[in-house]
Amino acid sequence: MSGTALDSVRALVFDVFGTVVDWRTSIIRELETFGREKRISADWTRIADEWRGGYHPAMDRVRKGELPWTVLDDLHRMTFETLLSQHGIADRISEAEKVHLVRAWHRLQPWPDAIEGLTRLKRRFIIGTLSNGNVALLLNMAKHAGLPWDMIFSAELARHYKPDPEAYRSVPALLRIPASQVMLVAAHNGDLVAAARQGLRTGFVARSTEYGPHQSRDFRAEHDFDVVARDFTHLAELMGT
Amino acid sequence: MSGTALDSVRALVFDVFGTVVDWRTSIIRELETFGREKRISADWTRIADEWRGGYHPAMDRVRKGELPWTVLDDLHRMTFETLLSQHGIADRISEAEKVHLVRAWHRLQPWPDAIEGLTRLKRRFIIGTLSNGNVALLLNMAKHAGLPWDMIFSAELARHYKPDPEAYRSVPALLRIPASQVMLVAAHNGDLVAAARQGLRTGFVARSTEYGPHQSRDFRAEHDFDVVARDFTHLAELMGT
Repeated sequence: MSGTALDSVRALVFDVFGTVVDWRTSIIRELETFGREKRISADWTRIADEWRGGYHPAMDRVRKGELPWTVLDDLHRMTFETLLSQHGIADRISEAEKVHLVRAWHRLQPWPDAIEGLTRLKRRFIIGTLSNGNVALLLNMAKHAGLPWDMIFSAELARHYKPDPEAYRSVPALLRIPASQVMLVAAHNGDLVAAARQGLRTGFVARSTEYGPHQSRDFRAEHDFDVVARDFTHLAELMGT
Repeated sequence: MSGTALDSVRALVFDVFGTVVDWRTSIIRELETFGREKRISADWTRIADEWRGGYHPAMDRVRKGELPWTVLDDLHRMTFETLLSQHGIADRISEAEKVHLVRAWHRLQPWPDAIEGLTRLKRRFIIGTLSNGNVALLLNMAKHAGLPWDMIFSAELARHYKPDPEAYRSVPALLRIPASQVMLVAAHNGDLVAAARQGLRTGFVARSTEYGPHQSRDFRAEHDFDVVARDFTHLAELMGT
């Protein structure tokens, strides 16, 4: 990225699931702890992976208009119900326990470099989320994990899930700056390609263990992104903070 | 406020102009500095007061549908143009200078107790704005002044200016909690009465010098609000933080 183009960036917004937080380790741990305490035996690792596996299909139903606008908390709940039935344990789990477990997505742990990198970047840039998570989820996560966001941008505010163009365009629109002054940071090539199509700058950070043994893509930047960093502290360094 | 009702509050959202920041001193200082540097003599104090005087009438035009949705930055610009003409100095000020001066509303200084009180409250509560200022204005102000918001809630997100009910209801809707778990903090009785009508809790903090010698109201809480505090550190104390 040329010095001039980099100098014009004023805001960095971050994909969250996988990029900022390690959803898989967190969800497996929550489910296993629950199963142990309640003496419910199940393949909790598989349930965690299938739960996340239902993420894109559920949002696609909203994006295609098969479902009205539905926030991610509610999509998580729908997918979880289906999984509990498929795994034959739906009747072992109370309503209060379901609410608690769906809220596990509000309690995800950040990758070890995330808070230090964000704290450094915050000195010079507006830093925010740009996630398909709803505002309450992202805000509760920030309070729980200590993520120092200046602003929670969310698909919920745009009422469009990424990779719909409206989701990306909502950030420069609310900031009242050109899209070229906003950078999306993500661990997913597809997200960044969609952002670049709307004029945003792009920063790739590989998270090659996001899907554990099932990781099949996004090991490296596959396009000519503006910045490619090893982790968030490296990103902070590359951005001059 | 009873201990039980107070215990249920999870988020505090703040009116900003007058409640968190001292707009009058800041705007007068910016205008006077500008006039001195550019050798443009005018009654800058009066222009500041008239600028703020145009605030409610401009928003009312939007609220009544006479204007389509227009963010506060643009309303500030419209009012400022009118004032410069009325004071006979419109042709002395360049476009870049107008942009700079309208942005003075992004550079307002907080009252001396604001940051300490907010920092304490943030430990236990979600803290956010709930202002008629647009998102960019509030975010730039937060970066400039060091206001530690968790979230920028704004009339812009609801596309309704306070005191429209939708503006207040947007906060519990986005947080996915009952309105009774959200408290609006404001220095203006009318704002709090409108919030209470939508089920929010209310906290009054008097800012008896907000309008300087022109202050004519809001010297004290005129209704039975849930909390009445002398300033933000007192509010933090009353809220147990």
